[in-house]
Amino acid sequence: MKTLIVYAHPEPESLNGSLKDLAVSTLEAAGHEVRVSDLYAMNWKAVVDAADYGPDASSPLKVARDSGRAFDAGTLTPDVLAEQEKLLWADTIVFQFPLWWYTMPAILKGWVDRVFTYRFAYGVGEHSATKYGERFGEGTLAGRKALLSVTVGGPESHYAARGINGPIDDLLFPIQHGILYYPGIEPLPPFVLYGADRMTAEDYPDVAKAWEQRLLTLESTEPIAFRRQNFGDYEIPSLHLKEGLEPTGRTGFGLHRRD
Amino acid sequence: MKTLIVYAHPEPESLNGSLKDLAVSTLEAAGHEVRVSDLYAMNWKAVVDAADYGPDASSPLKVARDSGRAFDAGTLTPDVLAEQEKLLWADTIVFQFPLWWYTMPAILKGWVDRVFTYRFAYGVGEHSATKYGERFGEGTLAGRKALLSVTVGGPESHYAARGINGPIDDLLFPIQHGILYYPGIEPLPPFVLYGADRMTAEDYPDVAKAWEQRLLTLESTEPIAFRRQNFGDYEIPSLHLKEGLEPTGRTGFGLHRRD
Repeated sequence: MKTLIVYAHPEPESLNGSLKDLAVSTLEAAGHEVRVSDLYAMNWKAVVDAADYGPDASSPLKVARDSGRAFDAGTLTPDVLAEQEKLLWADTIVFQFPLWWYTMPAILKGWVDRVFTYRFAYGVGEHSATKYGERFGEGTLAGRKALLSVTVGGPESHYAARGINGPIDDLLFPIQHGILYYPGIEPLPPFVLYGADRMTAEDYPDVAKAWEQRLLTLESTEPIAFRRQNFGDYEIPSLHLKEGLEPTGRTGFGLHRRD
Repeated sequence: MKTLIVYAHPEPESLNGSLKDLAVSTLEAAGHEVRVSDLYAMNWKAVVDAADYGPDASSPLKVARDSGRAFDAGTLTPDVLAEQEKLLWADTIVFQFPLWWYTMPAILKGWVDRVFTYRFAYGVGEHSATKYGERFGEGTLAGRKALLSVTVGGPESHYAARGINGPIDDLLFPIQHGILYYPGIEPLPPFVLYGADRMTAEDYPDVAKAWEQRLLTLESTEPIAFRRQNFGDYEIPSLHLKEGLEPTGRTGFGLHRRD
């Protein structure tokens, strides 16, 4: 495998930092190539603005259009170009981050906002009577897999089917389906560590063992069975799921899984 | 009303900029007090790091604990203290932002990550057999209402019950319930403009009229009927919703609404 690890935590001596280090050593020891985007160490610029598009920024700024023009012209900033190159190089992407306020930290969202430009991650492919662009299962990053490795402060029960925070799969859906699957990446079931705020050094060996096992079985793990957009399950252009495809009673985000 | 508008768009001459300006003028003309946090104009620091906690940052950094200690000591940075003060001043908070990759732009997530510190927005209240802290309907910001005003590039059908992106209410749940309701703010039904990427100057008068109407009826709008945590609907400490409270067949995020 060629694995890119995108890592977002301000403290190297954190649980997230340890999990990132363990991912590097475990994958390299198994003969895989690994590159790391350590967003805090890189002092990653988190905020989209006109400076991102250099000579291709218009006034007034149009984020989608201008980012696409800069992508086509090769004039995106070097930091963004480097991340796009890493994504094209990788066949597997691991995201290591703490769940802050039920989603990724701002620095990682800013990596998505800036790297996933128009014409690279969206605005790809043609529109016709049978195709609504290359998205959700097709796109620039098709053929790649991704794994979210997430630490969560609260206990697992709060993220269960009836838990007050909502089910973890639903909380991660906007990332797994909306960010990753959109440009073609196939997300694997996430690796979630609950109760991270109360974890002690004594808990770590078990955590490390579980994480190593996930890493060493990445290649044989089945991706989440999201439905592809352009292969008959959706009406075009409304992109409504056709009636009758889902198990009885299923609603919401779960409609977009085949299993 | 005392309204705080938190606004996140890099271009003043954008649809988001126009909606923010119209909110200010409409509310002021109706006799309300308005303050604006224009995150791009303020050059808002989006990224949590040790510098946020000054002398109260520990090494290794512990984000929750250190932010709470700095909050208690009054040593949070002036930019964060100013936002906390605005939130305490306001009775109504309007968030104006574009939906980027199915959630808020990084600069606004960074406002949440930095302003919603431990002891201010979480880690508030006691734990007992009948109470799991003051959260979800109680907390520092109880008594306040919030309105998300969101522009969305795609068409409404893609965000419908069977739409490929998932229902808009589910996409906004981690913000409305997880970020706003958690410290006690009651979210109102959101104001969502679809098809923003294809909107023209000719469409704007109708949009402006609808937005003015929402703004002028904020005080009489019923909040979303989220369930309060500590008033009998949830088992403590598992925070599972008790059996039988929901309409038959309802699952997922929808469980946490009383209606």
